[in-house]
Amino acid sequence: MENTIMLLCDIGNTSYHFLNDRDSYKKDIDDFEPSDIRDKIYYICVNENVSKKLEKLDNWIDVSDFIDKSKYYETMGIDRICAVEAVNNAVIVDAGSAVTVDVVKNEEFKGGFIYPGIKAMKQTYANISPALEYSFNFDLDLDIMPKNSQDAISYGFLKTLYSEVISFKLPILLTGGDAQEFKKIFKKAELDENLIFDGMKYIIEKADIC
Amino acid sequence: MENTIMLLCDIGNTSYHFLNDRDSYKKDIDDFEPSDIRDKIYYICVNENVSKKLEKLDNWIDVSDFIDKSKYYETMGIDRICAVEAVNNAVIVDAGSAVTVDVVKNEEFKGGFIYPGIKAMKQTYANISPALEYSFNFDLDLDIMPKNSQDAISYGFLKTLYSEVISFKLPILLTGGDAQEFKKIFKKAELDENLIFDGMKYIIEKADIC
Repeated sequence: MENTIMLLCDIGNTSYHFLNDRDSYKKDIDDFEPSDIRDKIYYICVNENVSKKLEKLDNWIDVSDFIDKSKYYETMGIDRICAVEAVNNAVIVDAGSAVTVDVVKNEEFKGGFIYPGIKAMKQTYANISPALEYSFNFDLDLDIMPKNSQDAISYGFLKTLYSEVISFKLPILLTGGDAQEFKKIFKKAELDENLIFDGMKYIIEKADIC
Repeated sequence: MENTIMLLCDIGNTSYHFLNDRDSYKKDIDDFEPSDIRDKIYYICVNENVSKKLEKLDNWIDVSDFIDKSKYYETMGIDRICAVEAVNNAVIVDAGSAVTVDVVKNEEFKGGFIYPGIKAMKQTYANISPALEYSFNFDLDLDIMPKNSQDAISYGFLKTLYSEVISFKLPILLTGGDAQEFKKIFKKAELDENLIFDGMKYIIEKADIC
């Protein structure tokens, strides 16, 4: 691969997340017009409406076309697949609107699960009862059983996830918009906010399309 | 204690749950008038509006007045406290609109946590994305990492809770409206749908008020 500037974009439900050779930045789905970009750009997209637009633009190249999808399941998000492609041996915790947890062992995808993200779960507790309307305590000591309501819901949200994730006895890789928050709980995890981009680059290089 | 008929009532946010000497039955909060009962009745109540009504009725006796609350925390639900009073050594999983998990070791309350119930969590996933709008699969094999969306959310909801609950290495007691469903996951748990009533009886007998 030549050392050219490669423009990457990971498109979610609410924003375009760009990475160029220098830095990463986000644009709101509603405010950004993709045809304004004239350079070649490699993307993945989980947003159906945006996908339809991008198909018509020749310089937007869908990275998902170059993945061997037989290793994954049909409805698995392309962002999760890219993260998995980036690692050989790890549990990937991608903390966004949902928290997706994917297990890769000796370069093989073992499966994964989906847990609610911070915002969704906070709303869930508040909907059950106004008495459970708290923000989560990320400084919670996971070794102590809670004896107050805020810690009781924080433990319910965080310790259950933590116990499951560490049970795989694999290195933990944290990514996604809420990765910094979860790092307080997963103290030994490695933070890699560009993990999905790393996966996209790996796929592009392997497919020799750039 | 004499072998008289004791009428008990556990009042939640949506229903009055009665137990007499023969059986248990429920009445809707909005359809039932507590002054229609003239017999002596022992109750606990988490519903503030109903509590105000019952305070005025002499034959309705609030069991919470006879509990040593110093062992618990201030905002802990009286239903959870009664369940804890009923056991010596167990993890109590009370599966209702929330799933409360309380740990009792050698007659000592160690603390507990609160997890969302089935209905609330189903709505949470659906709100995150229409692609996650599924019912939970309670026949899920917890030893297999999911490779489809329904199992991925079922595992996220159930396996995380399961891993945490079994980590206490104590007998598991299941109660609450959704106890039957959770029994499919907690296969070794003991089902006791009258656990809260058992706790109320224990408190009444200990206080020698009947």
